[in-house]
Amino acid sequence: MQNDIESYLLNLQKAICGAVSEIDGKDFRIDEWVRPEGGGGKSCILQDGEIFEKAGVNFSHVYGDALPAAATVHRKEIIGRRFDAMGVSLVFHPRNPYAPTVHFNIRFFLATRADECPIWWFGGGFDLTPYYGFEEDCVHWHQTAREACQILGEDKYQEYKANCDSYFYLKHRQEARGIGGLFFDDLNQPGFEKSFEFTKSIGNSFLKAYIPIVEKRKNIPYGERERAFQLYRRGRYVEFNLIYDRGTLFGLQSQGRTESILMSLPPLVRWDYDWHAEKDSPEERLTEYFLKPREWVKT
Amino acid sequence: MQNDIESYLLNLQKAICGAVSEIDGKDFRIDEWVRPEGGGGKSCILQDGEIFEKAGVNFSHVYGDALPAAATVHRKEIIGRRFDAMGVSLVFHPRNPYAPTVHFNIRFFLATRADECPIWWFGGGFDLTPYYGFEEDCVHWHQTAREACQILGEDKYQEYKANCDSYFYLKHRQEARGIGGLFFDDLNQPGFEKSFEFTKSIGNSFLKAYIPIVEKRKNIPYGERERAFQLYRRGRYVEFNLIYDRGTLFGLQSQGRTESILMSLPPLVRWDYDWHAEKDSPEERLTEYFLKPREWVKT
Repeated sequence: MQNDIESYLLNLQKAICGAVSEIDGKDFRIDEWVRPEGGGGKSCILQDGEIFEKAGVNFSHVYGDALPAAATVHRKEIIGRRFDAMGVSLVFHPRNPYAPTVHFNIRFFLATRADECPIWWFGGGFDLTPYYGFEEDCVHWHQTAREACQILGEDKYQEYKANCDSYFYLKHRQEARGIGGLFFDDLNQPGFEKSFEFTKSIGNSFLKAYIPIVEKRKNIPYGERERAFQLYRRGRYVEFNLIYDRGTLFGLQSQGRTESILMSLPPLVRWDYDWHAEKDSPEERLTEYFLKPREWVKT
Repeated sequence: MQNDIESYLLNLQKAICGAVSEIDGKDFRIDEWVRPEGGGGKSCILQDGEIFEKAGVNFSHVYGDALPAAATVHRKEIIGRRFDAMGVSLVFHPRNPYAPTVHFNIRFFLATRADECPIWWFGGGFDLTPYYGFEEDCVHWHQTAREACQILGEDKYQEYKANCDSYFYLKHRQEARGIGGLFFDDLNQPGFEKSFEFTKSIGNSFLKAYIPIVEKRKNIPYGERERAFQLYRRGRYVEFNLIYDRGTLFGLQSQGRTESILMSLPPLVRWDYDWHAEKDSPEERLTEYFLKPREWVKT
């Protein structure tokens, strides 16, 4: 079963990189790396493209004979087991401030011990971080997310959307990172086949959810004002990833490959002291309307 | 005694802002703020100056009737006591890549309870983060640091320098943040008078340590290469402050004033994937020579 998942993840990485390259006109650089303690990965990166200022898609599969205690706080039963962790994770930072930044991840975890039942789960999701909000993009994004969840029944979209809203939240700013999407974890209750099928459904939905939005926004004319706002808002992305993101912090603490982990950081970022958007401007509307959790699709 | 310390800190803030304004030609913006739970502060900020792209000097004095348990891990005896915490903290980001970024902080903490001895200590220090290294600047910086410590005897410079090297270290990069300086904490053993005198000696040394360096480097001609390297290295500063810095993380967790806490972040920053300096370049010399802890002054 691990081979099936690994194949799916590698094919998905390839398909996503292919689609992004086609839009951008530039190819990804591919770095394969080995983890001395077991496993390794494949980092695909496109920098300074015409459409994407930075787009990184990571695949990794790491394993070991005994999971260190530091690797989990909540799941004490997996400490000391043989483990496999694999996943695909990506962040795209388009150049045009009207095109949103996007994050997507799916992952599989397995912990085994002789004569005991294996412990495993899937996790993942995707979320969107616009600089300028467009109602129709939010609806399309969440509509696609909702459809991707149907395979597990009507109520899963609401549950995973709520998870996403609460996870991607900057407490020190009292601000959402973006307009949300899906976030699921510890998925195993429906059984392996169904859980894998669901995870693939999320994986296969990503391009459908994102590409139409970036296609629609990538050529909107913009000026210095929009660019400055984009760089300023990217600061929030950095703050979230370095202060709160569990994947980033776990990766850095466990001596993962730093350059692959921090591929998620934006290429260029500003911090302006105590900056405030003008009243009734599109910049104000981002935080005051789009970044407040709301029901984008009527269910 | 608290009044004396507060006066000293406010005067120091004024003197430092005055000296920086004089070099730059631009004035600081001053924001006074109140902390609803007790106390407040004064944030002085100079943005987009000719010499300083961003220079922030914070004073704060916060207090409360009962120190929350979350505020300390190591000092359980102060939980629930009335407390006062005050300090001055600054970070300057010069525009010229040949002029180093600098950080300085001094602070005083007091915890009291009726009929018990007050618990108090001083802490602080200063450290320098060059983009291009100059041997003579490092020697001057550490020489000044060493002289500032003499008041507590010959061995304190070595102790506080070693603290500084181990504190300002990016584990995930296996890299020092800068060329170090001084870092002291929990200082009370020499008694109040002497500890305060020492802390003032550190405070009074800051301009002597930094100004000659920025004066010497602020007008060196530079081009795109040096500017790009500066923005790239500033990424390390962000990584340190958001992932490791106790003051920053404690401030954000305790719902301090976010804009004052994050005044330390550079105005403009790049992240380039897997960037490496050319062999034998000044950029390589920064990490390979200047950022390795070394004895800059012979003692």
